[in-house]
Amino acid sequence: MKLLTFRSSDGPRLGALRHGDEVVELADPPDMLSLIDSGEEGLELVRSALSRGKGKVHGLADLHLLAPLSNPRGNVIAIGRNYQAHAEESARAAGKAVDPPTVFTKAVTSVAGPHDDIVIDGAVTSQVDWEVELGIVIGRAGVNIARERASEHVFGYIVVNDVSARDVQFGWGGQYFKGKSLDGFCPTGPWIVTGDELDPASLRLGLRVNGETKQDGSTRDMIYPVDAVIEWVTKGMTVPAGTIIATGTPDGVGFARTPPEFLKAGDVVEAEVEGIGTLRNRFVSR
Amino acid sequence: MKLLTFRSSDGPRLGALRHGDEVVELADPPDMLSLIDSGEEGLELVRSALSRGKGKVHGLADLHLLAPLSNPRGNVIAIGRNYQAHAEESARAAGKAVDPPTVFTKAVTSVAGPHDDIVIDGAVTSQVDWEVELGIVIGRAGVNIARERASEHVFGYIVVNDVSARDVQFGWGGQYFKGKSLDGFCPTGPWIVTGDELDPASLRLGLRVNGETKQDGSTRDMIYPVDAVIEWVTKGMTVPAGTIIATGTPDGVGFARTPPEFLKAGDVVEAEVEGIGTLRNRFVSR
Repeated sequence: MKLLTFRSSDGPRLGALRHGDEVVELADPPDMLSLIDSGEEGLELVRSALSRGKGKVHGLADLHLLAPLSNPRGNVIAIGRNYQAHAEESARAAGKAVDPPTVFTKAVTSVAGPHDDIVIDGAVTSQVDWEVELGIVIGRAGVNIARERASEHVFGYIVVNDVSARDVQFGWGGQYFKGKSLDGFCPTGPWIVTGDELDPASLRLGLRVNGETKQDGSTRDMIYPVDAVIEWVTKGMTVPAGTIIATGTPDGVGFARTPPEFLKAGDVVEAEVEGIGTLRNRFVSR
Repeated sequence: MKLLTFRSSDGPRLGALRHGDEVVELADPPDMLSLIDSGEEGLELVRSALSRGKGKVHGLADLHLLAPLSNPRGNVIAIGRNYQAHAEESARAAGKAVDPPTVFTKAVTSVAGPHDDIVIDGAVTSQVDWEVELGIVIGRAGVNIARERASEHVFGYIVVNDVSARDVQFGWGGQYFKGKSLDGFCPTGPWIVTGDELDPASLRLGLRVNGETKQDGSTRDMIYPVDAVIEWVTKGMTVPAGTIIATGTPDGVGFARTPPEFLKAGDVVEAEVEGIGTLRNRFVSR
């Protein structure tokens, strides 16, 4: 299933996509986090609503989509340098040796919707960059999750654009958090594809700026594939249900280009993962 | 006021300390996050309950204290290298140049109580270290908060021990998050002292392992004092009410000692900040 959150006059509403262009509004569970927490039972309610054709139906094109899960439990966890070619382009740009993968976070307040405008605050950064990523949504809490059982903890998958202020990321003492966490810097969506419908092993993922392809990779090239990411991240650390884990970006980011490229007001960025969908965000000045 | 959370047979309960050794149980607001969200109105309810002598009264010694705020909104934000002498001891230990302050996070799932046992998982780390810190609890959300107005956003202060698995912190690709986020690695408390009762400018803070002093500093030596931390951290990034910000540790941590010292099962660590109180956590093996 493709599960989404959209704006209504009464506030955010949960919906399920049908036939590619229709959205069935769901009354129960009331929101995505409740749905995740309700486990198989909640998904059964949704399946039943879909098959009975119950619930108000909207045209997808008429809806304003919000972040599918606007209130993840804790910061968005993200893997850095999980694609070798990106680790190498980053090292080259910095004139340093290639570093191994790493784990950092993006603030909950950075989470944005799939079509939201993203503000570039010139007082804070002049080096805004892109990173298309496959995101995992955790459905069942766990710690020390073995790779073989990782899929049991997956609720579904989303697209994440790990927008990054490179001057802040590399300039504020070397920890990535702040440069990755400016308001709006984590657009997600357009919906969550449930884990039973998507095999994450070999999905094409790409990113375009004003229609021009900048990234074009495959999850096949991840150093830690999805199940290994879950095993690695949860070593000694519990991930709650409702956690989002962004799994890293392929090569083609802006700061590693010659000359470096950064986003400016007016740019439109499309981030796409095969089998899920596309985020389309316009960057605007403050 | 000193506001705390304690365990009762019906689940966690909110309380206020009185006369140093009594706790007045509060029925409304129901928990610390609700109290923070209710602003001045909620604090007025608490003050009124205290002055009228209403509510069940417990002996402090009879209570099992929990983390005052077990569910902060988003990860605990933490400042690295905010005391020059600690920045220098860290650089010396790593054989590198002194780096400037930085911002990272600790997982929400690492938050623990003031007297909880902390598990050392030998399968994940063999280098568990201590860091006593003054923690800020944000009471009113804000972004781009000017230093002069920072105090308006403070709900209160707590003690934080930023427990750190150094092998994971420095070994997993250089980002601190994972080594700072193992389960239980963020004991907090013993209560929140409200901002009106504490001037954070010059507080002694120290840490003892099995009674032996390891850290003994003053918040006077912070590179970014509390108001500057709030200004710096919120540049372009909203902090929600209910955020905890740990403001950095003075010198005397274990990994920078000659020879390096790390915690082992059986060790008891006391982390104290003047005017707030003391965390006392025993480290145990898994």
